[in-house]
Amino acid sequence: HLTGIVSLRDLVISSTETTMGEIMTRDVVYVYTYAGQEEVARMIQRYDFLAVPVVDREQRLVGIVTVDDVIDILEQEATEDMYAVGGGVQSEGDNYFQTNLFTVARRRVVWLFVLLLTNTVTGTIIKSQESILQQVVALAAFIPLLTGTGGNVGAQSSTVVIRGLNTDEIRDLGPGQVIWREALAGLLLGVILGTMATGWAYWLQGDFSVALSVGVSLIAIALLASIAGSALPFLFRHLGLDPALMSAPFITTVVDVLGVLIYFNIAKSVLGL
Amino acid sequence: HLTGIVSLRDLVISSTETTMGEIMTRDVVYVYTYAGQEEVARMIQRYDFLAVPVVDREQRLVGIVTVDDVIDILEQEATEDMYAVGGGVQSEGDNYFQTNLFTVARRRVVWLFVLLLTNTVTGTIIKSQESILQQVVALAAFIPLLTGTGGNVGAQSSTVVIRGLNTDEIRDLGPGQVIWREALAGLLLGVILGTMATGWAYWLQGDFSVALSVGVSLIAIALLASIAGSALPFLFRHLGLDPALMSAPFITTVVDVLGVLIYFNIAKSVLGL
Repeated sequence: HLTGIVSLRDLVISSTETTMGEIMTRDVVYVYTYAGQEEVARMIQRYDFLAVPVVDREQRLVGIVTVDDVIDILEQEATEDMYAVGGGVQSEGDNYFQTNLFTVARRRVVWLFVLLLTNTVTGTIIKSQESILQQVVALAAFIPLLTGTGGNVGAQSSTVVIRGLNTDEIRDLGPGQVIWREALAGLLLGVILGTMATGWAYWLQGDFSVALSVGVSLIAIALLASIAGSALPFLFRHLGLDPALMSAPFITTVVDVLGVLIYFNIAKSVLGL
Repeated sequence: HLTGIVSLRDLVISSTETTMGEIMTRDVVYVYTYAGQEEVARMIQRYDFLAVPVVDREQRLVGIVTVDDVIDILEQEATEDMYAVGGGVQSEGDNYFQTNLFTVARRRVVWLFVLLLTNTVTGTIIKSQESILQQVVALAAFIPLLTGTGGNVGAQSSTVVIRGLNTDEIRDLGPGQVIWREALAGLLLGVILGTMATGWAYWLQGDFSVALSVGVSLIAIALLASIAGSALPFLFRHLGLDPALMSAPFITTVVDVLGVLIYFNIAKSVLGL
């Protein structure tokens, strides 16, 4: 059984008559054999430990985790998160650049396929609005701008929330506060970008109604994207899914599908179609 | 001047008559005061040191860096990279969730503005092809699918290359080999996704020429995107710019602009316009 720890420093400075029982620390921080590696790594990081003892269910000492293991664990977790956020690449702990090409393709194709499906939904929506598009072909030129910018705003929100959840930066704020903050930021960004987009669309197209539709849609889409981008990671964590891997496809779908619908409906009323 | 180090362990086990000169290690690994924090962190990580002495230009000992500082440095660098890859959020080392909302907007708007500009380029290209679009409005429905999938393939390639550069995983491979590998992976992914996209486009549109244009374009775009996604991080590092921050906007521009041009030109020849 683990009863205490003695540091080498204490051992050196204590007199030769002192017993171990007198100098040891009884109030030991330890982890169980079934603790997750990231949880242990975070504990060592937070308290600046050099090592933590590992005990089994009966509190018998079975090993230690040292600080140099922790660096590798946190590095690996960061790589996994970055691969997931940056493009849904499934990391399996090995070196990507020494992995077989077909394994690489298999790991990447799943996410690309999911996003292909979400893009087909967007395509179907655009197709269903073909009669409006036929009347005002000019509207088509601004679809990539709106869905692209919406996707970028959403990606920013989800990235900071996912990283915040994983590094405990977010600890003091509840989901409600975080989403509210992101919504305000999204609205602010939407107004700035919407103003610019209106000016640019007017310059390109020479039609103020189309330009206004683009600008107003961008404000609505930026707001929507930042709410979806900050709320979905909390939802996925709550459901026990990995937010880093799940967020991007769902945010893209929400932003693209609702974004195109918002755009065509705003255009319909502004243009009086 | 730094002449050697003695471990506490050696101090304890040596006899009382031994001098420091006899037990110290003279071949000390040290860093200079002007060394970059990430470089020092990587050194401690690679050799599993607990601490590294810091010396000034005259090799006088001025301090030490310990392993718990390293964890925080690597964590911070990983956060910066992830913010950059996941949406160009400029991290300035402080806690995002305690930062003023206007500072947050300022840090995020630059990148969004750059991407808005790249999207305006795509919009201009689409506008210039308006006569084709007028003849075959159905083509518009597949633009988000093509640019979106191309962007995703490019993001995957750039993410693994950026992370590989930062964690030294890529060390043994030259840029040529990495880009060649990614190009093959992109071609493989393009063929898989292009086949799916052709089937879906035919099902949605009922026009085999349009469906074939979509499929063939997707293969070309996936190849292009993976080459751009793997080559640009090397280029930016060579130019002394941060690959994590610079890659996304440039890859998006290349893929969107060239992707739309590829698509319209393939459609033109397949549809005989």
